[in-house]
Amino acid sequence: MSIIKIKKRGSTGAELRKDIVGGSWVIMAPKRMKRHKELPMCPFCHLEETNQEKPVLEYLRPDGTWSLVVIPNKFPSLDNYETLEQRQVGPFSVMNAAGFHEVIITRDHDRHIPSLSKAEVTEIISAYQDRYLALMNKKFINYISIFHNFGKKAGASIEHPHSQLMALTVVDPDIENSLAGSYRFYQKNKKCPHCVMIEWELNEKERIVYENKDFVVLVPFVSRVPSEIRIYPKDHKSYFERISESEKMELADALKNSLTRLELALDNIAFNYFIHTAPCDGKSYEHYHWHLEIFPKISVEAGFEKGARMEIIPILPKDAAKALRDVKIERGEND
Amino acid sequence: MSIIKIKKRGSTGAELRKDIVGGSWVIMAPKRMKRHKELPMCPFCHLEETNQEKPVLEYLRPDGTWSLVVIPNKFPSLDNYETLEQRQVGPFSVMNAAGFHEVIITRDHDRHIPSLSKAEVTEIISAYQDRYLALMNKKFINYISIFHNFGKKAGASIEHPHSQLMALTVVDPDIENSLAGSYRFYQKNKKCPHCVMIEWELNEKERIVYENKDFVVLVPFVSRVPSEIRIYPKDHKSYFERISESEKMELADALKNSLTRLELALDNIAFNYFIHTAPCDGKSYEHYHWHLEIFPKISVEAGFEKGARMEIIPILPKDAAKALRDVKIERGEND
Repeated sequence: MSIIKIKKRGSTGAELRKDIVGGSWVIMAPKRMKRHKELPMCPFCHLEETNQEKPVLEYLRPDGTWSLVVIPNKFPSLDNYETLEQRQVGPFSVMNAAGFHEVIITRDHDRHIPSLSKAEVTEIISAYQDRYLALMNKKFINYISIFHNFGKKAGASIEHPHSQLMALTVVDPDIENSLAGSYRFYQKNKKCPHCVMIEWELNEKERIVYENKDFVVLVPFVSRVPSEIRIYPKDHKSYFERISESEKMELADALKNSLTRLELALDNIAFNYFIHTAPCDGKSYEHYHWHLEIFPKISVEAGFEKGARMEIIPILPKDAAKALRDVKIERGEND
Repeated sequence: MSIIKIKKRGSTGAELRKDIVGGSWVIMAPKRMKRHKELPMCPFCHLEETNQEKPVLEYLRPDGTWSLVVIPNKFPSLDNYETLEQRQVGPFSVMNAAGFHEVIITRDHDRHIPSLSKAEVTEIISAYQDRYLALMNKKFINYISIFHNFGKKAGASIEHPHSQLMALTVVDPDIENSLAGSYRFYQKNKKCPHCVMIEWELNEKERIVYENKDFVVLVPFVSRVPSEIRIYPKDHKSYFERISESEKMELADALKNSLTRLELALDNIAFNYFIHTAPCDGKSYEHYHWHLEIFPKISVEAGFEKGARMEIIPILPKDAAKALRDVKIERGEND
């Protein structure tokens, strides 16, 4: 087998380049292509044999083996630089891609979230929180993205269940626009737009998929992809990283429940999920309402979506919600 | 075979729904799902037998048969309403999806743009312009998107070569932000950012793929997808629809050349292309620089791209440009 050694941190040559029109940053990560090589064994079942990075977090079982481990990504899109340098290349701003790119791995190769116990899913949420808290106050870090890809069609290059975390020095202008929009609504209506939407949906009922004590699962009236699922804290909470122990268990329940429904309703479809939470750039985002979004990979974005930046949704959210709600969850499947 | 008749225009129930946070409009088009049924024959080779809509434009050959035809999309995402009605559904604004959704079809099933003559590609550009001019002053129309999907992976549900045009009542906030960014740069520097970029790239050379009298083909320094290709008018031009006869021939040359290189360098890869031009909403966009963007379908957008709205590009633009530039175009292939 071919083992590619990253000689040292900060050597991947990744950089951020800023679009001079829209202001977005793009990550150039030329070493990322190497990860697509055929692997003779699962790197996450064989951490040592495949020469993975040393863990930054481990949760251990009573017998001393790990149940969950967090490692730096072996083919990172971000480099753990000690400095942040911006330079000009022609008319463009370029920065080294300083930041952290980590992988959160659960032990068993064949057990994805629907097959895990609630306690095991709670461990995943705890790892998200632990790493978020560990990185959010690091020098230069302003935004942390936590996400999970399932299935090749959703971009998962390794089958073994895992999530990823990327801690960035920049906040994308699209995200900034959403935060600003949320703030404008808050100022104008003295209410959070997400709270208004959740209250309305709980009353309407037809797009609600599931709820428990702290969380509601729904297909939003204005979905961004067909059968999009969002998990919201029922109460107004801005910062994911402040989630309590009991809320983590409720979130684990809602996540496991949602993904079980998705798997059964849409035949094990590929999906991405990610957490949208306030940036950690030191500003106040009390108006924001954190949530988790699940994007099943049902349709392909084509020229219109890319060119006009508008989505076309061929499944009404209420019909998508009904299909998910109608799934029979067997006793035991949601323990 | 099953023929689905759209009873009359304006009966698809499609609507636009506005996101209360970011302000984006999403198109809900529940009838679009029907188009995925297996077809016993190519609908574009057999327009009459498959009960397609009546043509809105036809270019005829000397023998009276058509070489190119434009028809309303049989499964439109937009409805040709006479009125535009906005209503409130809970906290959300909803509008009927007024607009036009057309399909631009070239005659031969097996001849995609690289196999067409320059004169035939020029006809495609002429059809884009003719339909743009016919629709841009229609009531309520503020933005027209022209795009082309090639290959299933890029969302082409019909193999027969075709482009599409969607004339919309709204301009997406992301597009508005780009236009505003372009305007800010123009105000600050007394120059168009695209002109600045083109001048720099022509000087640098390493990301240039091809150029002719009026157009330059390049892989942008800040690409949004791996091996993105952009075709720019060399002179500052804001409005695609004002393209001259001789410029159309040059654009056809640049487009055919680009897609031939893409096909040969990347093994017939799926792609989308679309035109970015100024909205037709009556405002002035003299600061804007229209262009055509080609997005090959190399990588899959995963949770990070969706959640953080940032792109990760694993191929350096200069390397992508070199691969495209190095393609040997045989004599005759670019006639």
